[in-house]
Amino acid sequence: MENAISITLDSPGLSDVPGFTCAGVSADVRGKGDDRRDTVLVYSESCCTAAGMFTTNDVKAAPVVFDQKVLAKGGPFHGFVANSGNANACTGKQGMVDTQAMAAAAEKACGAPEGSFFVCSTGRIGRALPMDKLLPAIAEAGKALGNSAAQSQDAAWAILTSDTRPKTVTATFEACGKTVTIAGMAKGAGMIEPNMATMLAFIATDAKISALNLQTSLRRANAPTFNAITVDGDMSTNDTVLVLANGQSDCDLDESPECKALFEKALQAVCRVLALKIAGDGERITKLIQLVVEGAPDNDAALKVARSMGNSLLVKTSWYGSDPNWGRLLDAAGYARIGLVEEKLDLSYFAGHPEKLDGTQAVPVLRKGEALHDKVSDWKAVVIQKEFTIHLNLHLGKGAATLFATDLSEGYVDFNKSE
Amino acid sequence: MENAISITLDSPGLSDVPGFTCAGVSADVRGKGDDRRDTVLVYSESCCTAAGMFTTNDVKAAPVVFDQKVLAKGGPFHGFVANSGNANACTGKQGMVDTQAMAAAAEKACGAPEGSFFVCSTGRIGRALPMDKLLPAIAEAGKALGNSAAQSQDAAWAILTSDTRPKTVTATFEACGKTVTIAGMAKGAGMIEPNMATMLAFIATDAKISALNLQTSLRRANAPTFNAITVDGDMSTNDTVLVLANGQSDCDLDESPECKALFEKALQAVCRVLALKIAGDGERITKLIQLVVEGAPDNDAALKVARSMGNSLLVKTSWYGSDPNWGRLLDAAGYARIGLVEEKLDLSYFAGHPEKLDGTQAVPVLRKGEALHDKVSDWKAVVIQKEFTIHLNLHLGKGAATLFATDLSEGYVDFNKSE
Repeated sequence: MENAISITLDSPGLSDVPGFTCAGVSADVRGKGDDRRDTVLVYSESCCTAAGMFTTNDVKAAPVVFDQKVLAKGGPFHGFVANSGNANACTGKQGMVDTQAMAAAAEKACGAPEGSFFVCSTGRIGRALPMDKLLPAIAEAGKALGNSAAQSQDAAWAILTSDTRPKTVTATFEACGKTVTIAGMAKGAGMIEPNMATMLAFIATDAKISALNLQTSLRRANAPTFNAITVDGDMSTNDTVLVLANGQSDCDLDESPECKALFEKALQAVCRVLALKIAGDGERITKLIQLVVEGAPDNDAALKVARSMGNSLLVKTSWYGSDPNWGRLLDAAGYARIGLVEEKLDLSYFAGHPEKLDGTQAVPVLRKGEALHDKVSDWKAVVIQKEFTIHLNLHLGKGAATLFATDLSEGYVDFNKSE
Repeated sequence: MENAISITLDSPGLSDVPGFTCAGVSADVRGKGDDRRDTVLVYSESCCTAAGMFTTNDVKAAPVVFDQKVLAKGGPFHGFVANSGNANACTGKQGMVDTQAMAAAAEKACGAPEGSFFVCSTGRIGRALPMDKLLPAIAEAGKALGNSAAQSQDAAWAILTSDTRPKTVTATFEACGKTVTIAGMAKGAGMIEPNMATMLAFIATDAKISALNLQTSLRRANAPTFNAITVDGDMSTNDTVLVLANGQSDCDLDESPECKALFEKALQAVCRVLALKIAGDGERITKLIQLVVEGAPDNDAALKVARSMGNSLLVKTSWYGSDPNWGRLLDAAGYARIGLVEEKLDLSYFAGHPEKLDGTQAVPVLRKGEALHDKVSDWKAVVIQKEFTIHLNLHLGKGAATLFATDLSEGYVDFNKSE
C-alpha cells in the first residue's frame, strides 16, 4: 500500500471522482435577468452512503432541516441539488414545500428514486424561492449532466455568491491496490448576497464506506478545518458540509483500518484546503491570519482564546492596517476569561502562509508578558504581509487550538451596509 | 419627603456635589506637544466611603489592580487622580510602581493621608507612563482645585480620549429634609487613542452611606446601565466605575431604607444617563439602538440573545446602511443558541430615542416568525432614524434584557486600522 496522498489544488472538482456527473445552469434566481449560473446538480448512478455537518444555529433554513431528515433515513443516496442567490431561510412553511419540490425535481431529472437527493440553498434570506424559474432549470441541469472538467467547473461556479473565485480540490491515494479519489467544492464564508453568510461544501468520493464510518470521519475532519475558520463571527442559517461516497473504487474501508485511516487523512486534507480557500476569499478581506494558541488549561479554553482574538473588531482592524498591535491581542485574549496570567504569556509572529511555515523564524513579541520593544521593526515586517501566523503560549497547561481568521476592511462595511 | 428626582443633563459635573473640588490640567501624556488637558484630580476634604466596579478581563491594567486593593482596605478615601492618553496596561512591574507614584503625588498635592486616593488611566496600552511630566502635572492640579463649573468641566474634558464631547449629569433629591446630590462624569467606550477601548465613570455624592451599602447600590445600578452597552464588543483592560460618598448631606441612608431606595434610584438614573451618553458617542457611530428581548427562558438567555444581535457585524453594518434587515437579526438571535423557536418570534421596531418611547407606536416586522412584507416602507421609516428600538419577544418564558448598541461604520475601521 502506497501511503502518499496526492493533492491537486484548483482541480476540476467533483467530476474527478469516477461515477459522479455534474451540471451548473442558470435559473436567474437573483432576478437580475442575467445568465449567471446559480443551479447545481450532482449525480451518481451508483448508490452512495452519505454524511453531513450542519449549522447549529437555532434558526435553520428549510434545506438544512430537510437534509437532516433525509440523512437520518439512511439512503441510499444519489446526489444533491443546490441553488445560490436565495437561502430559502426564514421562509416559513412555503420554504419546506419548495425544498421538497427541488428534491423531487432533481430526482426526476436524474431518474433517481425518491428520498435519494439532498438540497442546499445559499444567498438572501427571508424571500420565497422563484420556483417557476428554478424547477425548469433543475430539469435543464439533468440534461446537462456530464463528467467533463467544464461541467464540473460550471457546478463550482454556480454555488458561489459573493466569492470572487471557485474553490475546488482533489485528493487521491492508493488503498487495497486501487486508487481512491476524494474531490470537493465549496463556497465562501462572509456575507453573501446582501443578507447572509453561508458556507457550503460538497465532497464526493468513490471510497466504499458505511454511513456510520463516513459520518465519524467527517466529524473528525470538520473540527480542525471548517469549524476553525472565521470571517465575521456570524454563524449562518444554512452552513452545510455534505459527503457522498459511491463505493466505485471497490476498496472496503470498513474492513481495513489502515485504508480507513488514510481516507480520513485525505478527507481532512480536502476539508483543510477548502476551509483555507473560504477564509482567504472572505468578503473584502486583505489578510489571512493563522492563530495558534498553546499552553491553555484544555483545548476548549485554547479555542475560546483564539476565537476571542480572531473575532475582535479592534484586532481585525489592526490587521487591516498592518499595525503590530499586540496590546489588542492581549486585551481580547484576556476577555475570553479562561484565567490567563499576563506574566506567563509568550507571543510570537511568523511570516508567510499557514501551510508554508516550516523553517520560518519566530519573531518574538512578548516573553513572560514583557514586550520586546526593540523588535518593533521586525514585528512590522511580519504584519505587513498578506499571510502570517500569531502564536500565543499561555503556559498554563497542554490545551491547544488553531483558528484561521481574517482582517476587517472598510470595504466589508460598505459592501454589507444595505441590500 | 419629596419623592421626585431631579436630573440635569450636561451639568457642570462633580463640583455640583458639596465638598468636592476638581481640576483638569495638561501633562502632555500623548507627547504631542499640545496643551490638551489629560490629568484630573478630584478631592473631598471630608472623608468618603467608596464603591467600585472593574473590568473582568484577565488582563487588568495596573491602576485597576491598585484600585481593587485600595478599595479592599476600606479607606477612608479622599479622591482620585486620573490621566488620559496612556492606559498604563500591559506595562509589567513598572506599571504598578507608576500607579503608586501617581496616588502618592495626588495625596501629597491635596494634603491627604496615604491610601486615600484611587488612580485611573486610559488610552494607549503597552507603553510606560511619562512620569517626568505626569508627576509635576498632578502637583499643578492640586493647586488648581476648585468647585467652579469651569474647574469641573476641565476635569470632564481631561478624562476624554476619542470621545467627541464631555459626559456629565447631576441628580438631586430630598431625603430626611435635606437635599442629596449625585453627580457623574464619564468617558467613552469604543476605541481610545489608537489602542484600547476603556470606559471610565466617576460619581461623587454627598450622601452618607456605608461602603457596604454603597457597593450594593452601585452593583445594582451598574447591571442595567454600564453593563448594558456595547460599541464594538471589546472589553477593556481598564474599565472602572468609582463612587465616592462624603456624607456632607447628613442624611444617614443606612438608617433609612426609604431614603436609601431613593438614592439607589437616583444613582441608577445617573449611571443610565452616562451609559447612554457613552454609547451615543461611540467611535464613528451614526446610530444608537435599544435592543429589548422578552419572553426568554430567563434573564441571562435574554441578554445572550441581545448581545448576539448587538455585536453581530452583519447586524451593525445593516443599521449603518439604514437597512431594515430582520433576517440578520434572526440569524444572530439564532446563534446565541438559547433554544429559540422561529415560529414563535414576534419582532417590532419603534422609532425614537430609548428614553422617549412612551406612546410610540410599534411597527410590526414578524408575527409568529412570519414577515409582514407589506410593512416594508414602515420598517424603513424607523431604521433610517438615528435612534430606534428593536423589540423581540421569544414567547418561551419570562426572561427579559435590554442592551444599548451602536452601528458600525467605515469610519470605525479607518480610525482603528493603525496607530
